[in-house]
Amino acid sequence: MNKFSAEELQHIVGSVQPVDLSLEGQARAHLDRLTKPLGSLGRLEDLAVKMFVASGGKPPQADPARIYTIAGDHGVNEEDVSYFPQEVTRQMVENFLAGGAGINVLARTSGVELIVVDAGCKGGEFPDHPGLIQRKIACGTNNISKGPAMEKGCCLRAVKLGVELADEAHAQGIKVLGTGEMGVSNTTPSTALYCAYFDLDPADITGPGGGIDAAGVVRKIGVVRRALEANAEVVRSDDPFAILTALGGYEIAALAGLIIGGAKNRQIVCIDGFISTAAYAAAAKICPAVGDYCVLSHASAEPGYAKVINALGRRPLLHLDMRLGEGSGAALSMFMLRAAANIYNEMATYDDAGVHAGG
Amino acid sequence: MNKFSAEELQHIVGSVQPVDLSLEGQARAHLDRLTKPLGSLGRLEDLAVKMFVASGGKPPQADPARIYTIAGDHGVNEEDVSYFPQEVTRQMVENFLAGGAGINVLARTSGVELIVVDAGCKGGEFPDHPGLIQRKIACGTNNISKGPAMEKGCCLRAVKLGVELADEAHAQGIKVLGTGEMGVSNTTPSTALYCAYFDLDPADITGPGGGIDAAGVVRKIGVVRRALEANAEVVRSDDPFAILTALGGYEIAALAGLIIGGAKNRQIVCIDGFISTAAYAAAAKICPAVGDYCVLSHASAEPGYAKVINALGRRPLLHLDMRLGEGSGAALSMFMLRAAANIYNEMATYDDAGVHAGG
Repeated sequence: MNKFSAEELQHIVGSVQPVDLSLEGQARAHLDRLTKPLGSLGRLEDLAVKMFVASGGKPPQADPARIYTIAGDHGVNEEDVSYFPQEVTRQMVENFLAGGAGINVLARTSGVELIVVDAGCKGGEFPDHPGLIQRKIACGTNNISKGPAMEKGCCLRAVKLGVELADEAHAQGIKVLGTGEMGVSNTTPSTALYCAYFDLDPADITGPGGGIDAAGVVRKIGVVRRALEANAEVVRSDDPFAILTALGGYEIAALAGLIIGGAKNRQIVCIDGFISTAAYAAAAKICPAVGDYCVLSHASAEPGYAKVINALGRRPLLHLDMRLGEGSGAALSMFMLRAAANIYNEMATYDDAGVHAGG
Repeated sequence: MNKFSAEELQHIVGSVQPVDLSLEGQARAHLDRLTKPLGSLGRLEDLAVKMFVASGGKPPQADPARIYTIAGDHGVNEEDVSYFPQEVTRQMVENFLAGGAGINVLARTSGVELIVVDAGCKGGEFPDHPGLIQRKIACGTNNISKGPAMEKGCCLRAVKLGVELADEAHAQGIKVLGTGEMGVSNTTPSTALYCAYFDLDPADITGPGGGIDAAGVVRKIGVVRRALEANAEVVRSDDPFAILTALGGYEIAALAGLIIGGAKNRQIVCIDGFISTAAYAAAAKICPAVGDYCVLSHASAEPGYAKVINALGRRPLLHLDMRLGEGSGAALSMFMLRAAANIYNEMATYDDAGVHAGG
């Protein structure tokens, strides 16, 4: 791994271009010429406009699309915050590679490529697999309830990994990226990140994650509080990268890098659920312009999600009561992007079809 | 067209079997063995359960799927209730056949077959086309603000047409049906039907349809009121078929038949937006058991839709601010059904994948 400095990260952040919003009118004018009542395709039209504007004014392209499902373990797991034992992170990576997990099925159904990345799983290397990128930075994070999750250099490496994944996809012609993750206990660092970034109270946004009971949620709230206290100086610092380092995880930091890298490349990035949105929050705090390139794929059923979305001032696309993670919601939203792009590119205009435009 | 009596309709209605709800536990038990937190795929799991139960306990099948987009004109158009002139019904049918409309794009994107049906367009026959079924019952309805839309025998023929379309699809192996419609002014009869079936006030649920302005909405409210008055005896009669005859349209009655026929065949029927849901309301009033076989595809952006859904006691699947009709929301929901079926049929179990089931 090459050295990756804070300066280099700042350089990449600086190279993310805010979109030219004046292009929006051009896209809307095209959509308004198509044979449908004005605006009647609602959020599909918004997605088409977003793709047009993000690309700098090219017809929307939703394909090819790729999901990176990035895995990492969490030291905070030792605080008994998860329904699943820690070895499930590794077992699920193996399940991804065997094609049997939810994200495999949904990526196939959506016609989207899936690549699995080990950014920080406990234990050794996985056997080689064509669908796996092994870039383990460490064997899990440190316990955030006792101190920082990562060293600064390690978090920088994770962010750089994400940028490189976006760049590799861009070089291969990928137009749309999806974020996915696997990491037992990773709703805990995500919750801590939300609290730190948006000054939320742990009691208001901590939920059951993979399925802990009410007593477990109470315990988890306490763990998040301790994490914020153990990293209080950083939390108060208002330095979003430092907060990511202190409270995040390897998969979360890599996803933040994927989001920043995708935005730099003018790719659309479909953000999955509760954990991916924490990576989005980090990326948007570090580099606000990423918002122009990101779609919040779906409203996670994790109870804290609504407050988080409110804090972000964004509106998710799908509302399907899902809380699986892995990139599952991103896979479904990528289908919606394809529908939106096809509407923009394939529908007849009133003039072409000889249909009276009304009014 | 063969004679189709009210008795024959009652016979078909009687042959719709309520589902065996005891099968639901079996489907949930299977889903709970799959490698995901319990219930974490939310409404996709609900869709899979619905397909399993509707089929009588077979693994969900979402394909092949077909949308029937059924067209008809409306005498009430002469009351100036629509943004588009009446000839647009015919022009849009031609647009469907040329492949340039929104429903063409979305059906293609979803991998769903589209068949267009003329049930009651003004004017003569269309030129032959492999994607068109010409079963015109009349050249549009009568003006509901002055009296009944249809004669009883004509409405029965329209319902029968829909049943036959469902049967033809069933004979060809179609597992999922989608409802679509085209008919300038058809939000007006739909609104009148909702008012009659659910005792709603026209002022509470009348909206802009294809795009009329605020003054137009006020005018449309008055037209719906006059329609309810002109057909007051029927509205008070509590006879759902008589209400459909008095206030509906040929495409709406045919869609009600499609829904009843699909339910009879144990096909899943994806109900599109505001107008299709009026057909669903008619079908469900005539034959309550159809609800077990129907998915409300999406929440129409037509303002009255929320009150209608409340009256129906159902929850739509997608919330995309769409109000195009044609079957556009049904096409998107059919993709979600496919995702749900694939989850049920293709995901690995905890045992198979060697993943610790947690807890």
